[in-house]
This record gives sequence, structure tokens and C-alpha cells, in this order.
Amino acid sequence: MSEENNPLKDSVKPQFGASGRKIVYDENGKPCRACNTLLDFRMVTNKKSTSSPSGSISAASGIAATAATAAGAAPNAKACPPDVEELGRSTWTLLHSIAATYPDNPTKNQQENLSQFMNSFSNLYPCFHCADDFREYIKKDKIKVTNRDEFGKWLCNAHNEVNVKLGKPKFDCNLWKERWKDGWKDGRCD
Amino acid sequence: MSEENNPLKDSVKPQFGASGRKIVYDENGKPCRACNTLLDFRMVTNKKSTSSPSGSISAASGIAATAATAAGAAPNAKACPPDVEELGRSTWTLLHSIAATYPDNPTKNQQENLSQFMNSFSNLYPCFHCADDFREYIKKDKIKVTNRDEFGKWLCNAHNEVNVKLGKPKFDCNLWKERWKDGWKDGRCD
Repeated sequence: MSEENNPLKDSVKPQFGASGRKIVYDENGKPCRACNTLLDFRMVTNKKSTSSPSGSISAASGIAATAATAAGAAPNAKACPPDVEELGRSTWTLLHSIAATYPDNPTKNQQENLSQFMNSFSNLYPCFHCADDFREYIKKDKIKVTNRDEFGKWLCNAHNEVNVKLGKPKFDCNLWKERWKDGWKDGRCD
Repeated sequence: MSEENNPLKDSVKPQFGASGRKIVYDENGKPCRACNTLLDFRMVTNKKSTSSPSGSISAASGIAATAATAAGAAPNAKACPPDVEELGRSTWTLLHSIAATYPDNPTKNQQENLSQFMNSFSNLYPCFHCADDFREYIKKDKIKVTNRDEFGKWLCNAHNEVNVKLGKPKFDCNLWKERWKDGWKDGRCD
């Protein structure tokens, strides 16, 4: 069943979810699927959460998708829309990988293309309150597109700002290439 | 150890990997990490693959990331750069989620913003031969940004083109909203 037809009345709108995070509602007063964890989304829509649907959690999703593909089923046929955590992980994976393959000496065109991508991304990110925060962030710390390392470190710092907001530890941005481009020096990624 | 200093000589360059896929080399003759599966990348760089490093496979990555975060370790501290499959899954997750939150009646500005995003994305996607294919695709089937359902279905068709190329079954694009926006009618995502 879709949440489309089930906006909550103001009087019964929980402010915080079981995860401890603030519940995010959209402009129509409906809980936003891409802005909340699945746990909180379910809590606030009063749905049972007795089972973990395939695809609702990244780890489960990976396994389910692999199994489904192996069995010849339609890819992702019965996986679920991502919650805020799966969406976040997926997006950082793409963005840091873009940094990893961005040139050391980009042309003016390549620099403009990356600026354009990041700016349009900041208007489109599906978790709208995360997108608001990101647009605020790029106002005070302008996107750096001069070369791979500048962009990679800028992005790592932006990611750290989110880590801090979520109570997660910061990542050492001197190591961004090991994490996202070359793998670790101990050879675990080789 | 990085593959940076280890380009392969033409004479010892395998053409196909253990997965059956063609091995993709970059312009310097090095195997491209973001363009090959981890299995093939390891095969061609002659690295042992006795253990599955955390982060190299999406399912393992999810579990490892969760455990690391719970233990208070740096997020993703020891995860590995994504291979072509993890990168692909992550990217489709972001793109379809953008479709799911794109307006039913977008303004001209919103339409231009989405066009700009998709065009710059097609120049930046880290798997460069996938990006080449995608740019070819959007030449013959122009990106549709007129409203949510048009874009969602256009994107689903683009995804299906890739599914077919990879020998995966096609997804029924009439169901894209169930998969990426509202969840399935049987309630498994509620």
C-alpha cells in the first residue's frame, strides 16, 4: 500500500522516531520515505515491521538482488524504495567515485561540467532536507573543481560535515584516495 | 598496493575475465577499477582473492559499514573502492530516487536543472565505457524531463537497455513507481 493516500493529521504526528532521529514530513504532511530511516518511516506510518523486506536494508538488498539475478528473476523486481541511509550510502559511493576518476589536470570544460553536476545535484537530491543542508554547505565552502585531489578532499570534508551531524566519527581526508580510488596500502583491496 | 604503478604489458593483457565479461583497460593500459567486477580486476592484476575485503561487495559492505559504525570506528574506514557492480547499483538507486521525487508539474527551471544534471552525469560517470554507452543512448532516446512519470519511465527504459546488455531480464517499466517511490501493492515495503 502506498503512503500517498495516507497523510497524517498534525495531532498524531510523532516528532521523533525509534532511531532517535527527527521525523521528516514533506510539504503535504506525509512522512518522506527518502528522508527517514525505514524503521522510523514504518513507525510513523503505523505499519508492522515484523519482517525485513528485500531491498529495504542495503545489506539485505545486495544479497537479495544477487540471488534474484542468479535465479533469473527480474532484477530488483521486489526490492523496496531506499530509505535515507541506503540513499546516502549509494550517493556518497557515486560522488566519491566521480572524484576518484576526475582528472588531475581538468580542462575548463571538465571543470564547468563538474560544477554544473554538483549544483544541479544539490537541487535534486531526493532527501529534501539533506539537499537544503547541502546547498547551505556549498554556500559557505565553495565546491572546488580545480583538480582531482582538491575536489576529492573538498567532497570528503562535505561528507564529514554530515558524519558529524549524524553523530558519526570523521574520516581522515588525507586517506580519501585509499578509500575511494586505489585501495588500502595493506593490500586488502587488491 | 595501488594499481597505479602496475600497468600491464599488451602481451599479457587478458581480454576476458573470470566473470565472462570483457576486461576494460584505461587509456594508460591499466585495468579500470570502476569498469570491471572485483573478481575480474583481481584476476587481471594477478592478485590473490582469498578473502572478501569489507566493502568490495555491496552486501558485505552494508554489514561491515553498520558494524564499524556501531563500534564507533571511522565510517567506511577500511572499506574498498567500489567495483563496476556496486557502482552501478548505487547509481541506479540515486537516479531512480531522483525520478521518484521529481515533480509531477516541474517548472521550466526544474526541467532545465534535471537536463543539466543528466547531461553532466553522462560526462562524469566513473566507468568510462558505461558513460560512452550512456551518451550514445541519450543521443537516440532523448532524456524526457517533462514530468515525474515521463522521466521515471525514460530512466527505466535506459536501465533496461543496460540490463539487456548484461544479459539480465528487463524490468516492467509500468511498475517503476512501486519499485522506486511507493513500494509494492502487497505491502512488503510498508
